[in-house]
Amino acid sequence: MSKVTPLGRPRDPAVDERVLDAALLVYGDVGWSGFSIEAVARSSEVGKASIYLRWSTKQDLLNAALLRSIAAVADRDTGHIRADLIGLTRQMLALYLGPSGRAAMRLSLDGERVAETRQWHAKIARARVTAARSIVRRAVERRELPATTSATLVLDVLCGGAMMHALSTPPALRGKVSRNADAYAYAYAEQLVSLVLD
Amino acid sequence: MSKVTPLGRPRDPAVDERVLDAALLVYGDVGWSGFSIEAVARSSEVGKASIYLRWSTKQDLLNAALLRSIAAVADRDTGHIRADLIGLTRQMLALYLGPSGRAAMRLSLDGERVAETRQWHAKIARARVTAARSIVRRAVERRELPATTSATLVLDVLCGGAMMHALSTPPALRGKVSRNADAYAYAYAEQLVSLVLD
Repeated sequence: MSKVTPLGRPRDPAVDERVLDAALLVYGDVGWSGFSIEAVARSSEVGKASIYLRWSTKQDLLNAALLRSIAAVADRDTGHIRADLIGLTRQMLALYLGPSGRAAMRLSLDGERVAETRQWHAKIARARVTAARSIVRRAVERRELPATTSATLVLDVLCGGAMMHALSTPPALRGKVSRNADAYAYAYAEQLVSLVLD
Repeated sequence: MSKVTPLGRPRDPAVDERVLDAALLVYGDVGWSGFSIEAVARSSEVGKASIYLRWSTKQDLLNAALLRSIAAVADRDTGHIRADLIGLTRQMLALYLGPSGRAAMRLSLDGERVAETRQWHAKIARARVTAARSIVRRAVERRELPATTSATLVLDVLCGGAMMHALSTPPALRGKVSRNADAYAYAYAEQLVSLVLD
């Protein structure tokens, strides 16, 4: 019943996913300096040749893995400073506590020095700064915050708090947390935002 | 006039320093997976043979570099919660903004997975948690903070805020900031602590 195509067997999407999952974990473990198609082949148990058929360079492979798993934060206007900040913080916590967390943290470090990762780092950072500025601006307009509030200070505290919390959660526990990430991230995001607002 | 020693020329301490400085920067740039005596030799312009005479493995070399430059935080009891927290935050900011900052951040990531860096990571993290707990405990005893205050939440925010602030300071500016690190770290530490306490 299988359709014959002149280009040979169709690509198996399950293999793509296995390779991209592995690429994300390998990058999270070793950063750009240790990242290689060979290491991803070993970790995913997919042959190097099959990987090269799909992505011809390690840069292409990493781009595909990041594109699939790491989203820039979205700013949703709820009309209230507290809910806006909790929404932003939840997204950052879910990222750092989830399976892409270590890759996201590697990006913040590599992004400064490694040309191949710079655009990713810049895109993620820009989305956060833009969201934090908009949230604070709206809150100032609604007189929920004083006009002197520094959006970058608020962002440093919430994003840094989220990252630090993930880093200090033991990996074993992080797995548990991650299965229940949404409820957990919500509760912790609330605590972080309360510390800043109250 | 030089004293003849049976073991040959005495080691030149300036070479030691050059190698250790380079080791810290190389580690900060590439993490454990890219760290090698060869890379440090290239960066320091000291021959590999001379480096091996001093440190026989890359682990010994990294240990020596970290021991020289990365201190665990010290908890100084000033009698007031604000000054205690500012003191703690200043130390973390000075670390992350200074020349060892990238190495310290690499350690937080490598420390989880790479056996060779685990003890360093644990030592730094333990000193911070102990300091934060003592500071919060004293503040609760003085009734400056409610008994329910979470020391880890406070630490996540201050330490994460310090790390994030360093990460979002452009490298060029960070150099400038670093030359004036003490005054700068003090001012920013005050802002972070005010956000938490006020």
